[in-house]
Amino acid sequence: MLPGVMQAQHPITFFTKTEALSVKASLSKYPLLKQSYSDLKKDVDSWIGKDVDVPFPKDPAGGYTHDKHKANYTLMFNSGVLYNLTGDIKYAKLVKDMMLKYAALNPTLKNHPEATSSSPGRIFWQALNDANWMVYAGMAYDLVYNTLTAAERKTIEDGAFKPEVDFFTHELKDWFNLIHNHAVWATAGVGMIGIATNNQDYIEMALKGTEKDGKTGFFALMDNLFSPDGYYTEGPYYTRYAILPYAVFANALNNWKPSLKIFQHRDNILQKALLTCLQQTNIDGTFFPFNDALKEKDYTSNELVTAINIFWNAYGADKNLLPVAKKQNRVMLNKGGVSIAAELANNKNISPYFAYKSFESTDGVKGDEGGISVFRIGKGKELTSLLYKYTSHGLSHGHYDKLGMMLYDKGNEILTNYGSVRFIGVEQKYGGRYLPENKSYAGQTIAHNTIVVDETSHFGGKESVAENFHSDKLFSNCSNPAVQVVAAKEDNAYKNTHMQRTLYMLQLEGDKRMIVDLFNIEADAQHQYDLPFQFNGHFINTSFKYKATTNKLEPLGAKNGYQFLWKEAEAKIENTTLQFTFLNDRTYYTISSLIQDSAKVYFTRTGANDPNFNLRHEPAMIIRTNGKDQSFVNVIEIHGKFDPVYEFSTNAYPTVKGIKLLLQNDDYTIAEVMVGENKLIIAQCNKDFNTKQIHSVQNLSWTGAYMVMYNGKIL
Amino acid sequence: MLPGVMQAQHPITFFTKTEALSVKASLSKYPLLKQSYSDLKKDVDSWIGKDVDVPFPKDPAGGYTHDKHKANYTLMFNSGVLYNLTGDIKYAKLVKDMMLKYAALNPTLKNHPEATSSSPGRIFWQALNDANWMVYAGMAYDLVYNTLTAAERKTIEDGAFKPEVDFFTHELKDWFNLIHNHAVWATAGVGMIGIATNNQDYIEMALKGTEKDGKTGFFALMDNLFSPDGYYTEGPYYTRYAILPYAVFANALNNWKPSLKIFQHRDNILQKALLTCLQQTNIDGTFFPFNDALKEKDYTSNELVTAINIFWNAYGADKNLLPVAKKQNRVMLNKGGVSIAAELANNKNISPYFAYKSFESTDGVKGDEGGISVFRIGKGKELTSLLYKYTSHGLSHGHYDKLGMMLYDKGNEILTNYGSVRFIGVEQKYGGRYLPENKSYAGQTIAHNTIVVDETSHFGGKESVAENFHSDKLFSNCSNPAVQVVAAKEDNAYKNTHMQRTLYMLQLEGDKRMIVDLFNIEADAQHQYDLPFQFNGHFINTSFKYKATTNKLEPLGAKNGYQFLWKEAEAKIENTTLQFTFLNDRTYYTISSLIQDSAKVYFTRTGANDPNFNLRHEPAMIIRTNGKDQSFVNVIEIHGKFDPVYEFSTNAYPTVKGIKLLLQNDDYTIAEVMVGENKLIIAQCNKDFNTKQIHSVQNLSWTGAYMVMYNGKIL
Repeated sequence: MLPGVMQAQHPITFFTKTEALSVKASLSKYPLLKQSYSDLKKDVDSWIGKDVDVPFPKDPAGGYTHDKHKANYTLMFNSGVLYNLTGDIKYAKLVKDMMLKYAALNPTLKNHPEATSSSPGRIFWQALNDANWMVYAGMAYDLVYNTLTAAERKTIEDGAFKPEVDFFTHELKDWFNLIHNHAVWATAGVGMIGIATNNQDYIEMALKGTEKDGKTGFFALMDNLFSPDGYYTEGPYYTRYAILPYAVFANALNNWKPSLKIFQHRDNILQKALLTCLQQTNIDGTFFPFNDALKEKDYTSNELVTAINIFWNAYGADKNLLPVAKKQNRVMLNKGGVSIAAELANNKNISPYFAYKSFESTDGVKGDEGGISVFRIGKGKELTSLLYKYTSHGLSHGHYDKLGMMLYDKGNEILTNYGSVRFIGVEQKYGGRYLPENKSYAGQTIAHNTIVVDETSHFGGKESVAENFHSDKLFSNCSNPAVQVVAAKEDNAYKNTHMQRTLYMLQLEGDKRMIVDLFNIEADAQHQYDLPFQFNGHFINTSFKYKATTNKLEPLGAKNGYQFLWKEAEAKIENTTLQFTFLNDRTYYTISSLIQDSAKVYFTRTGANDPNFNLRHEPAMIIRTNGKDQSFVNVIEIHGKFDPVYEFSTNAYPTVKGIKLLLQNDDYTIAEVMVGENKLIIAQCNKDFNTKQIHSVQNLSWTGAYMVMYNGKIL
Repeated sequence: MLPGVMQAQHPITFFTKTEALSVKASLSKYPLLKQSYSDLKKDVDSWIGKDVDVPFPKDPAGGYTHDKHKANYTLMFNSGVLYNLTGDIKYAKLVKDMMLKYAALNPTLKNHPEATSSSPGRIFWQALNDANWMVYAGMAYDLVYNTLTAAERKTIEDGAFKPEVDFFTHELKDWFNLIHNHAVWATAGVGMIGIATNNQDYIEMALKGTEKDGKTGFFALMDNLFSPDGYYTEGPYYTRYAILPYAVFANALNNWKPSLKIFQHRDNILQKALLTCLQQTNIDGTFFPFNDALKEKDYTSNELVTAINIFWNAYGADKNLLPVAKKQNRVMLNKGGVSIAAELANNKNISPYFAYKSFESTDGVKGDEGGISVFRIGKGKELTSLLYKYTSHGLSHGHYDKLGMMLYDKGNEILTNYGSVRFIGVEQKYGGRYLPENKSYAGQTIAHNTIVVDETSHFGGKESVAENFHSDKLFSNCSNPAVQVVAAKEDNAYKNTHMQRTLYMLQLEGDKRMIVDLFNIEADAQHQYDLPFQFNGHFINTSFKYKATTNKLEPLGAKNGYQFLWKEAEAKIENTTLQFTFLNDRTYYTISSLIQDSAKVYFTRTGANDPNFNLRHEPAMIIRTNGKDQSFVNVIEIHGKFDPVYEFSTNAYPTVKGIKLLLQNDDYTIAEVMVGENKLIIAQCNKDFNTKQIHSVQNLSWTGAYMVMYNGKIL
C-alpha cells in the first residue's frame, strides 16, 4: 500500500509549487484574500530580523513559554507559506533560524516540569500540544526544504524532529496508538514530519500505528472515531478540535499520494464530520455543549477555517458553507481559500445564517450506539432548536447525561447544560486546564436536563462503567414540521431501572411553538427522582406558592454535583399542573408540569462550595418525586414578547391551562394538554413502534407509534 | 403674550396642511420613509372596519385595559396622520368612532381601581398615563378636526377631553403645577387639547400653570427642569421620558404661534437636553443608569425618535444624529422624518457610533448644584467611558450615590450601578411598576460605587433631606487626553463628615488605560467605611488569601440595602496593595487598592432576602476600614485579552505592582503607583485649586491643582 522511495517534491504538505503559484497570482484579486495575506504578512514581518526566543519549557498553558512555543510554530508555518508566495529568502531564513534553535533545544528535553497528565509533553505541558507543534513545524520545514543545505536538513531532522517522533512512538506509544482525538494530532504530527522529511517509516507508523498493522493510526482513526453520519462521540466541540489534524494531514497525504483517495475514505467521512459538526451549532456559531465544551468557542475558530478551506477544494465548493466562511472573515492562503474569497467577493446574497435543519445522527462506529436528534422550527434569527442526546458516553470528555435535552431559541440558550468549567488559556485558573469542578459538577447528571435517581449520577459517575453502554432510539420522525418526535430509552444508567423519554416539538397554528416531554421511569423499588430544568432567564412567576430561603442559603445536597447548588426556594405540590414562567431576552418561556400525587420543587443556583469562584451562578428548577414507576409530563411553551424599549409586554402568560395523563401503562401513554380552549392530545405507544400498526385506545385510533391531535385534527 | 381668539387652522399640532402635503409628496422617495409609512399603515389598516374596544379601566400596567388604552391612543394618532397623508376618510372615521367611545366613557370615570400613587389616573392607574393619552388623543382630534360636524366636536370636546382636563387642573392641580417630569406630560396634554380644540383657557393653564402666573406650567418647566447645559437632574433615562412631551408640544406651539420662538427658549435648552442625553449613553445606545433607570432602554425608544425627528426640523439638520437615527430604523411622517430618511438614503458613510466625547454638565437650574463628568478614551467599539456623579439628589428617582463612579469599556458595563428593580410592562411583576427592592436596594448607597459610612446610606436614605444638598466640583480638566481629571467633595451626606474624591483617567504609552481614584474621607469620630466596587465579570484571582463561605451563605447586613447581599467571601488585609482581577467578555480588569494599616474585604452577591426573585444576582467587592480620617487609593487597570476561540490569553496579569501614599495631609495628596518598572506619580492639592499656583512638595514641583508624572515626565 505504501509507495517505495520516491523522488520527493517540496513543498507538498500545505500546498504544492503549482498551487502556490496560483495562490500568488490571485493575491490581489479578492478583498478577503488580500486582507488575510496582509494580516499574515504583517505579523511575520514584525519578526523578520529579530532573534525569536525559543525558551526552555517551563510554564503551563497561559504562561510565557507555553504561549511562546505556540506562537512560534504558527510563525514558522506562516513564514514558510510567505516564502513560497513571495520568493523572498528572508522568510525561509526565519524558519531555518528557528528550526535550528529547536534542533538544539529538543534533544535536551525531558518531561515538561508542569506535566500532570498521563501523556506528558516536552515542549509543552501535555503531549497534545507537542503534536500541534509537530504538525505545523513539519509543514514549515517542508515549505522551506528547498532552501536548506543537506547539513542543515540533517541537523533539523535529527535534532528538532527525531526526538519528538521517537518520544511519541516509543515512550508514548500507547497514547500514540489510542483511538482518540489526541491520537489524530499525534499521528498527523508524526506523519507530517514523515512527508516533510521523506521518512517512510514515520509515514507508515502514522498511517497504521507503531506496529504498522493498521489496528491504530490515521486510517483506523478515520474508521473508528466517527459514526457513519460523521457524529463524533465526544461532541461537536471536540469534532472541531480533531478536524484540523484530519484536514491538514489528509491534505498533505493527498498531495503526496493522490491514489490513496484519502478524502473519499469511508464514504467521505471527513466531509460528513464537518457538516454534522456545523449543524450542531447555535445561530451565533457556538457549538452545542454536548459533553465537555467551552460555550464561547464558535465556528470561527482556526480549526474550522482550516477544515473549510481544505475541504472546499477536496470535496468541491459547497455554497452552504459561505455564511460560515463569511463570519470567519479570513481564509487560508491555499486553493480553497482563493476560491472562497472569490465567492465572497462575487456573491452578494450570502445568507447571514448557516442552513440549519432538523437532523439526526447515530453514535458509534457502526451507527448502533444511540445518537442525537436536533429538531428545528423557524428560520434565521427566529430559529428554535431542540436537542436530545441518547448517545454512548463520549470517552474522557463524556458527561453523565443520558436522555438529556436542551433548548435554544432566537440564538439564546433557554434550557441548557453548564458546559465545561474551564478558562482556556488563563494561567491564573489552574493553568488554563479543566478545573476540578468540571468533573465534580459540570459532568454530573444534576448539571443536565434529565432524571437523577437518588442524587446519584448515571453509572455512578464512573467512566469505566459508562463506556460500556449507550442509550437506544425507539422511534423518531422529523419530516412533519408540525410534529417532530423522538423517543429513546436507557436501561443501564441505573440498575434495574428503565427510563424512556419522548420529546415532541410542535408548531401549532399561528406559529405557536412548544415542546411536550413525556418521561417515564420504571424501577424495581422505591427511589427519589429529580428532574432538573436548567433555565436561562429571569424568574417571572410561578402558579404555586413556595418558601424562599431568604436569610441563610445552604447546599441542596452533599455530593454528585448537588454540593454546588444553593437551595434558594422549595415548594410542596399536590395533584396539579405547576407552571413556572421565566424571561430570556425578549421572550417568555413557561414550563408546565403535571404533578400527580405529590412532588417537591426546588429552585437552585450554582455557586456553593466553590471557594475559587470557578463557577458561573446559574439557576435551575428541580422537580422531585418519590416512587417506583413515575411519569413526568412537561410542556415547555415559548410565548409572548417583552419590549422594554417600547414598554409593551404581550402574551406574558402561558396558554397552557392544564395537563392530564389520560392513560399510562406498559403499552400506551396518552396525555391531554389544554392550550387555551383547544385540546392537544398526545398518544404514544411505549412498546410497539411499528409504523403500520393500527391502535385503538380510549376512543382514539391511529396508525404507528404516536399520534398528535390538536383541536380534533391529527397533525 | 397669548393671542386673542384666532381663526383656527387644522391640522396644526403634529403638522400643518402644507407640511402634510410635502410629506405626502416624498413618501415613495426614501426607503426608510416608505418603510415607516407602510409599517404604520399596515397596523392601522388592520383595524379599519373593526369595532375597536375602549374598555372600562380595570388593569394595572401590563394588563389588558392598560395596554389597550395605550394602543388606542397610538392608533388614533396614527390613523389621524394617515388621513392627512391619504385623504381617505376611513382613517378619519376610525378616529371619530374611537373618540366618541371615549366621549361616552370618560365622564363616567372615577379614580382607577389600581391607583396607588398620589396622582391617580382615570383611564390608567396613574395620571401620567392619562397625560400620555391626552397628548396623542389631542393630536388625533386635531388631525381629523376638519371632518367632524359641530355636534361631533362638541360631544368629543365635552365628553372625551373636558373631564380629563378638569381632573388635571382641579383635583390634580398640585401635581399639574409641579416642577417635575410628570408635569411636562400633564401640561403638554392639557395644552395639546387646548390647541386642538381652540381653547385659550387650556392653553394658558398649560403654559403658565392653573393660576396662570407663570410660576409653573410649560415655560416654567423649560426654565427649571434642566441645568443650563441641558442636564436633567433625574438622569438621562428620565430625560428620555420628558423629552417627548417637550418636543411634541413645542412643535404644536411653534405651528400655532411661531412668534413664541419656543424652540429658542432659554438658549435652545431642548436641543441641549437632547444632546446631553445622547452623550449619556453607552455605545449600544443604552442610557447610563444615573438614578432610577432600566438598563434595557436605549435611544431607539419612541421618545427619542420623536425628539430627533422634530428637532431635526426645528434646530436644523445635525449630521451627528445620523448614527442614532440609523439605529432607530424608522422615522416619523413629518418634515424632519422626510429629511432624515433622505440623508440616510444618500449618505453612505454614516459612522456606526454616535460621536461620543468627554464632557461635563452642571446640575441645577443655575448650574450651581454640582454635576457630572463623563471622560472618554478611544473610538468606536474601543471606547472607554468613566462616569462621575456629584449632582443634587434627582427628585423622586434620585439614588443615594454621592461621588459615585461607573466605568464602561468596549460597550460593556465594568463597574456599574444596579439600575432599577423593575420589569416594565410585565404584569406579573407588580403590574410593571417599580418593585419594592428599587428603593430598599437599588437606590441605597451600597448598590453604588462610593463610600458608605456605618452601613447607612447618604442622608440617612431620606429624600426630604437629600433634596436640600448637592456635591460640589472642586476642579476638573478633560482637555488633555493623557490625563483627564475631576475632583469633587460632599459635606452633607453624613454629618460632620467630609468626602473628597478625585478621579484620574489616564491613557499611558501604548494606549494603556487606567483610572486612579483618590478618595479621602474625614470625620470627627471613628466610623466604619465601606467602599464597594460593583464589578461585572468573572472572578479570576486575588493577590490575597480569603475565606470563602462555601456551605452556608448569610447576608452581609440587616438594612439599608445590606440585607440583599450574600457574603460569599471575606479577608483581612494588612499594609499591602491588594489586587483583584476579573474578566469581562475578552478583557481583564484589575482593581489595585492600597491598604494602609488594616482592612477587611468582602465579596458579595445580590439575591438575599429576595423571595420574589426580583433581583439579578450581581457581585461586588467591598473594602471595609475603620477609622476617623481615611484615604482610599485605588487603581483600576484595563488590560490584556482573553480569546477563547484562538485560545490565547495575553497580559492577563496587571502591570500595577504596588501603590504608595507618599504624602497625605490637608493640603496635598501624593501617590506613587509602580506600573511595571515605571513610576507613576499623582500629586494633587486638596484645598488650593488655583490653576496658576506653583507648588513645591517633596522634591516635586508643579503648577495648578494637580500633576501626573509618568516615568519622570509630566503628562
